Amino acid sequence: MPVRPSAGGPVPIQFDVDPTVAQLADATAQFVREVVVPTERECGGSVHDAPEALRERLQKAARDAGVFAPHVPKRWGGHGLDLRGQAVVFEAAGHSLLGPLALNCAAPDEGNMHLLEKAATEEQKRTYLRPLAAGETRSCFAMTEPAPGAGADPRLLRTTATRVPGGWRIDGRKWFITGAQGAGFTIVMARTSGGPGDPGGATMFLVDADTPGMRLVRTIETLDESLFAGHSEIVFDGCVVGEEQVLGTVDRGFEGAQVRLGPARLTHCMRWLGAARRAQDIALERAGSRMAFGSALGDLGMVQQMLADSEIDIEASRALILRTAWELDTGSAAASQLSSVSKTFVAEAVNRVVDRAVQICGALGVSAADAPLARLFREVRPFRIYDGPSETHRFAIARRAMRPYRHHVAGRSVASGSSV
Amino acid sequence: MPVRPSAGGPVPIQFDVDPTVAQLADATAQFVREVVVPTERECGGSVHDAPEALRERLQKAARDAGVFAPHVPKRWGGHGLDLRGQAVVFEAAGHSLLGPLALNCAAPDEGNMHLLEKAATEEQKRTYLRPLAAGETRSCFAMTEPAPGAGADPRLLRTTATRVPGGWRIDGRKWFITGAQGAGFTIVMARTSGGPGDPGGATMFLVDADTPGMRLVRTIETLDESLFAGHSEIVFDGCVVGEEQVLGTVDRGFEGAQVRLGPARLTHCMRWLGAARRAQDIALERAGSRMAFGSALGDLGMVQQMLADSEIDIEASRALILRTAWELDTGSAAASQLSSVSKTFVAEAVNRVVDRAVQICGALGVSAADAPLARLFREVRPFRIYDGPSETHRFAIARRAMRPYRHHVAGRSVASGSSV
Amino acid sequence: MPVRPSAGGPVPIQFDVDPTVAQLADATAQFVREVVVPTERECGGSVHDAPEALRERLQKAARDAGVFAPHVPKRWGGHGLDLRGQAVVFEAAGHSLLGPLALNCAAPDEGNMHLLEKAATEEQKRTYLRPLAAGETRSCFAMTEPAPGAGADPRLLRTTATRVPGGWRIDGRKWFITGAQGAGFTIVMARTSGGPGDPGGATMFLVDADTPGMRLVRTIETLDESLFAGHSEIVFDGCVVGEEQVLGTVDRGFEGAQVRLGPARLTHCMRWLGAARRAQDIALERAGSRMAFGSALGDLGMVQQMLADSEIDIEASRALILRTAWELDTGSAAASQLSSVSKTFVAEAVNRVVDRAVQICGALGVSAADAPLARLFREVRPFRIYDGPSETHRFAIARRAMRPYRHHVAGRSVASGSSV
Amino acid sequence: MPVRPSAGGPVPIQFDVDPTVAQLADATAQFVREVVVPTERECGGSVHDAPEALRERLQKAARDAGVFAPHVPKRWGGHGLDLRGQAVVFEAAGHSLLGPLALNCAAPDEGNMHLLEKAATEEQKRTYLRPLAAGETRSCFAMTEPAPGAGADPRLLRTTATRVPGGWRIDGRKWFITGAQGAGFTIVMARTSGGPGDPGGATMFLVDADTPGMRLVRTIETLDESLFAGHSEIVFDGCVVGEEQVLGTVDRGFEGAQVRLGPARLTHCMRWLGAARRAQDIALERAGSRMAFGSALGDLGMVQQMLADSEIDIEASRALILRTAWELDTGSAAASQLSSVSKTFVAEAVNRVVDRAVQICGALGVSAADAPLARLFREVRPFRIYDGPSETHRFAIARRAMRPYRHHVAGRSVASGSSV
Repeated sequence: MPVRPSAGGPVPIQFDVDPTVAQLADATAQFVREVVVPTERECGGSVHDAPEALRERLQKAARDAGVFAPHVPKRWGGHGLDLRGQAVVFEAAGHSLLGPLALNCAAPDEGNMHLLEKAATEEQKRTYLRPLAAGETRSCFAMTEPAPGAGADPRLLRTTATRVPGGWRIDGRKWFITGAQGAGFTIVMARTSGGPGDPGGATMFLVDADTPGMRLVRTIETLDESLFAGHSEIVFDGCVVGEEQVLGTVDRGFEGAQVRLGPARLTHCMRWLGAARRAQDIALERAGSRMAFGSALGDLGMVQQMLADSEIDIEASRALILRTAWELDTGSAAASQLSSVSKTFVAEAVNRVVDRAVQICGALGVSAADAPLARLFREVRPFRIYDGPSETHRFAIARRAMRPYRHHVAGRSVASGSSV
Repeated sequence: MPVRPSAGGPVPIQFDVDPTVAQLADATAQFVREVVVPTERECGGSVHDAPEALRERLQKAARDAGVFAPHVPKRWGGHGLDLRGQAVVFEAAGHSLLGPLALNCAAPDEGNMHLLEKAATEEQKRTYLRPLAAGETRSCFAMTEPAPGAGADPRLLRTTATRVPGGWRIDGRKWFITGAQGAGFTIVMARTSGGPGDPGGATMFLVDADTPGMRLVRTIETLDESLFAGHSEIVFDGCVVGEEQVLGTVDRGFEGAQVRLGPARLTHCMRWLGAARRAQDIALERAGSRMAFGSALGDLGMVQQMLADSEIDIEASRALILRTAWELDTGSAAASQLSSVSKTFVAEAVNRVVDRAVQICGALGVSAADAPLARLFREVRPFRIYDGPSETHRFAIARRAMRPYRHHVAGRSVASGSSV
Repeated sequence: MPVRPSAGGPVPIQFDVDPTVAQLADATAQFVREVVVPTERECGGSVHDAPEALRERLQKAARDAGVFAPHVPKRWGGHGLDLRGQAVVFEAAGHSLLGPLALNCAAPDEGNMHLLEKAATEEQKRTYLRPLAAGETRSCFAMTEPAPGAGADPRLLRTTATRVPGGWRIDGRKWFITGAQGAGFTIVMARTSGGPGDPGGATMFLVDADTPGMRLVRTIETLDESLFAGHSEIVFDGCVVGEEQVLGTVDRGFEGAQVRLGPARLTHCMRWLGAARRAQDIALERAGSRMAFGSALGDLGMVQQMLADSEIDIEASRALILRTAWELDTGSAAASQLSSVSKTFVAEAVNRVVDRAVQICGALGVSAADAPLARLFREVRPFRIYDGPSETHRFAIARRAMRPYRHHVAGRSVASGSSV
Repeated sequence: MPVRPSAGGPVPIQFDVDPTVAQLADATAQFVREVVVPTERECGGSVHDAPEALRERLQKAARDAGVFAPHVPKRWGGHGLDLRGQAVVFEAAGHSLLGPLALNCAAPDEGNMHLLEKAATEEQKRTYLRPLAAGETRSCFAMTEPAPGAGADPRLLRTTATRVPGGWRIDGRKWFITGAQGAGFTIVMARTSGGPGDPGGATMFLVDADTPGMRLVRTIETLDESLFAGHSEIVFDGCVVGEEQVLGTVDRGFEGAQVRLGPARLTHCMRWLGAARRAQDIALERAGSRMAFGSALGDLGMVQQMLADSEIDIEASRALILRTAWELDTGSAAASQLSSVSKTFVAEAVNRVVDRAVQICGALGVSAADAPLARLFREVRPFRIYDGPSETHRFAIARRAMRPYRHHVAGRSVASGSSV
């Protein structure tokens, strides 16, 4: 184990949480149980085409319960939790698919708030971060393109931004842009130098909803439906924005996006871990109450094996998330590797847990109305693809692990340009 | 996540280690690399029938390097590390199969020291713990019996201890007793009330090596060969010991053994994690230097997948071990569950890591002389069986997880008597 | 391997198919490609609430193409294929989720035709089998009950049929009854002796759609939507049928249902194997055309691993299906075991193949409109539960394998009453 | 499914075996049970350094029992079975690790006989094949080289053969050459044109044991020990052979070796399947007789799951082997793909089956003396590496599956030169 001695003396490894975090987590759990879960039943957990009124109602309730915006800096009205604190609270929020929406810590807004806090100018923060943090508007992050553009491999980026007097002109096509429908602004990644296949030369732009030349062409029907406003396809056709709309540094957009992606992957893990815990709780409830072959379902060995494997998956996920949160919070060099490790493991573990819960619940598990499992089964699957498919992360993990061992081989790796 | 607010104020979750632990871990890593690994090559890592002189030589070197007995209370000459500290140091020691032997923290002695520290009288500690901690003697723990006796299910215990004037007479047969050959004393579990199938009524006894009626009948040839003195079969035939040889409380032997088993399982995990890390390092070395199909082995996707999966397994194992160590160190009620979760996950993860390393190294991976992988492959397999097979732990994990959900079902579980 | 010498001399093991079967399979493949797949796009493959007109149109087209009813005895207008022939043709039909519906060989009608052929009186065949085989009506099989009734464990059967003058009165509740909505008749399993938990005492009844006392209370929204008319909940409340409506023998309903279940499980496997092949073909198409990290997706090692694993799963599934079909066609004693083995393996293999295809296709894989993978992902999951969950089949497989080895253990197994 | 109509009319798919094959399989099973298994106990199944006398004794017994050389053409004294017949008989032989040796159908001799039958001149057959088939001598196949030579990637071949007056001079180093110690002759693959990295230019040579310049430098200690004479390292240093010692065509050695490799991989599968069946039988025996937690081990759900999964693995392996044997026997174009599919699946399935048997048997499973499982565990692991590691086969499977889908991508695959 890479040993990092604590600077401040003999403070041992420990997992206790700050009492204010503990209190917020308890309040969140109660809020989700009493307010969000009943609402979830109204819409079956599917909010890809829900009205803004639903979001507003849930967020008002969260504010009233004192659990709104746990991750937002206090300056912008939130609780200012670091990632370790978020790990505890987001898991509680994730117990319902709508919990993160209610707390204003759902994707993609949560990640965009983080990015703006790190990369935006003070002026940009007042214009974009303040209302976003307050739930007054929504946002989206437009990176992914349809083939042959940027997908798992960001270097294939084809959307371009070319200099025009006073600003930039953006042209290209994006898809699977979560939350685009109705978003107040879009953060767009566009190529400002180089060509498709080159690793650099990208820049991020803040584009207001009503900017001419940006057009939402369709909302894509997907397996998952629990992200507010769903996933859309957007066309940029001569969309001109001013110089002040550049977010971060010109030609350094990929590096800038990393600021968003590392923590955003981990907060995904936190929220989905809550969903996995929900599925396991339903499975345990079923296993404790359903009789089969002369005993409770949960006393049959094969069911016990599934239940145990899910407990193991949940505990391992949680331990990895906390470790990674600490690495990110403390700015450790190991954070990138741990972030990929956590994303890969947790995404797959969450899918296994939900799959086992479906199996244990049998017919009830595939019924879309009688239990939320069929919905969860649909929701968690894309998590193994979104924010970097598992294969891209595994490639990055192996490459980092190999670094000290490359002494015998000349030349560089064929595929060394991934941004994961 | 079960939230436990820290009593002492806002100390966040953290993974830094105490500087003295860090220093000891570094010294251990250096000692293993420079002293133990070369010795390992002498004997191929196989010490089931090695001479005591080898052990004495290694332990003397460890004392000279200042890394002897990291887990032993300072009172008895050790470094007094808690389990979190042990996690860091034992992983470093486990890098060589002989590392734990050198540091006097190998099974079964390490677990027996812990048991004696917790359960022995002051007199017993002076007689048995002191020399054991100093490496002056070795010990064994005689619990497992051949069928139809106590195996995964301890309630099947058939060895009996019956009261005789001034003490107890022990009769029965034990097998797979690690380290028995040449041990200075044996801790024996025997039935003092009830009969085979009953959950209670067991007592632990301290039996000196030369006690009449205790006889080692054979040393069992096994897949693994890295535990000093191997595994033996012992017969007790009218073996009489005095009253003062009772360890702990009469008829409460199973509860007493739990004191040993929880931490002993976790220290197993720590040591084996070091072995897994060793295997992965060998695989990375090979992947970085061997060319195939036009690139380094480690640039081929399927090899990258194996390397990445092993990194994930190692990180998840480490995170679980640290979490469990903290639970055990702080006396948490969650420690039993986490202990079973860690044992199950880490045992299987370590096997996967070694198996992948064998596969990556190909012919070299199955060669017993050219790399230590074939040896490691043999050594780690029994870890999924020793100290409770994975199935027994999964049963226990599921049963604990089910507890709050049993409201609808009357009666008790058929198989509720396991001591895991 | 259990060797069964051929009676008729040296005819070796062989996999060639009868030329008429080959011709029918080719015609089916062409029909599905040219007629069914375009229709599938109309409704997205979801026909749980499709109009009868869709079915009629597809079945007319199949009749015109000469591929209708491959499994139906020639006497009733079909092609009279045995299970080996069906294996080849049903896989071709399964290439589209609507293929089996078009050929009138979808569940549950196909299994019911088989059951009626084997168990019905001549009069019952004329009344029920003839129009069913011709596609003039549809049917359903009402066995499963909501908890605490018959699910994976059929002995929990609670629906009762009690003798009344001239016939039987049926009372109870069934759910997950596939195709019930609009079915011309229902085959109901009801208890005619014994009580819940008893292994025997069940009888099958033919109940016409308009029989008073049988009422469809709701159609259950489920993860899967490709079975025509979906899955419904039905209540029997004083539903009286005549003596001539008994199907098979009174009190021997479970044995009778076995006649249906063995082959029905295997034909499920055949159809789903076609779906898996479809998913793999889509993944291969994508892997051959999408570029990433400097090469075609299909030249990346981790993608190759997924593609290869799916080829392996498909070939192993096909080989098991053919072997099982032969065992069933020849009335072998090994057929029950092979049937459970195939159901378990193929159901899980098909799920793995579809899951990998989703992963390889990335965003496209989870898009519900741009490729059929998201639909397939939803459809195949319940196959691991329907017709006996994998766990029930594994229990039955192990129990049969254990039979010759039970000599040392007295008494019978706790859970020996399963009907799988 | 690719449909191949039978030429000779309506002969359906069938799995019955020729009565003479059935009889030979029964006789083999009896011979192994009564003669070979007792001998196995003498040496623990480890024959890597056994005396020739052991082999001679076993082969004499096999001749006496009428089961010697089932695969050898009748012309050379064998039973002349095709691969389908071999599948049945070799599985019976594989029940003991020494069974194939006794029947003279063990690796590498069995594959070499096949190669000689296909590629040798009549004169070479009389000189080399005749005594090999009769068990009068042994042989080896020298292909694999230590890094950086030919391993999984045969194109890295570095051993050279250069023309000298009247013949060829061979120089180079080979390792992991099974059976080299004491072999009467060696088939060597050497480069006769091109250089390391080139796909072609290899030639096979027949080298007699006493040829000057060929020297066995060591026998490698490996995880497996059941192949007679073990695996050795050989040096060729100015080893000169005559022109008549060329086997097959100059520069076409890789193509020639394919003749050996396809069937040799499949016969490996057959033999190892017998070993897996043996392991499963031991596990079933244990599961039926050992009590734990109040019932027979085999009545516990998690044990049932392992037993069932092993039955499934065995049946799927057998079905794949028979299908592939038929493809090879009939010279089908699909044979190469099926051969890779079977090798990959069966090698991994056999490992899973043995691993589960070890787990079920617990302490007994890792004991090297009390049951053959620890030995089997060591023996089956290298099977996933020998004769092409699983990764190389998966690469080849994916590449073949991709062929029809490469229309959109220009250029050839980076790694298209594998000979698997």
